[in-house]
Amino acid sequence: MKKKAVYTFAKWQVQQGQLQSVLSLLPELIEKSTSEEGNLFYKIHQSLADPNILVLYEGYSDENALETHKSSAHFQQVVIKQIVPLLEKREVEIANEIFSEE
Amino acid sequence: MKKKAVYTFAKWQVQQGQLQSVLSLLPELIEKSTSEEGNLFYKIHQSLADPNILVLYEGYSDENALETHKSSAHFQQVVIKQIVPLLEKREVEIANEIFSEE
Repeated sequence: MKKKAVYTFAKWQVQQGQLQSVLSLLPELIEKSTSEEGNLFYKIHQSLADPNILVLYEGYSDENALETHKSSAHFQQVVIKQIVPLLEKREVEIANEIFSEE
Repeated sequence: MKKKAVYTFAKWQVQQGQLQSVLSLLPELIEKSTSEEGNLFYKIHQSLADPNILVLYEGYSDENALETHKSSAHFQQVVIKQIVPLLEKREVEIANEIFSEE
């Protein structure tokens, strides 16, 4: 796989009444994701217009590192098994940065 | 307005055949946006799955700085007047970062 950083944008629409449950799961997810060797950063944002919309922005050293993240126990356990069932909608975009100084 | 950094996520679906036109307008937009006093960064990404999807991720020192950006000549001239007519779809989310060390 190419040795080029990849970035993921995940937009989560949390189901009404489930925000606190999702927020309570995030510290563990951040800690374990940022301790992965290929993780560059793991940022979570909350929409000003709708607090039930969360936007995650993550960086990985290359596509291999992203695959490692997606097959990790914490991604499978926390995101797929616990968070996704509490979401109304989930959009994920995987991208390269363009026009960057790197 | 609150003195707290705000971040914008803009997802652009570029019309078929208009990508080069949009890409050609971005260097000027990046240069002028990053020279605004309240701009923290201005990052552009291109989807791996669909090169016609661009994701912009921008940071501003506070909501005032974001308003200044949106009323700037370059935002109005380049984004609103020239780029938006070349887009099929445009989604914008304005958010605060949560769980950050700041």
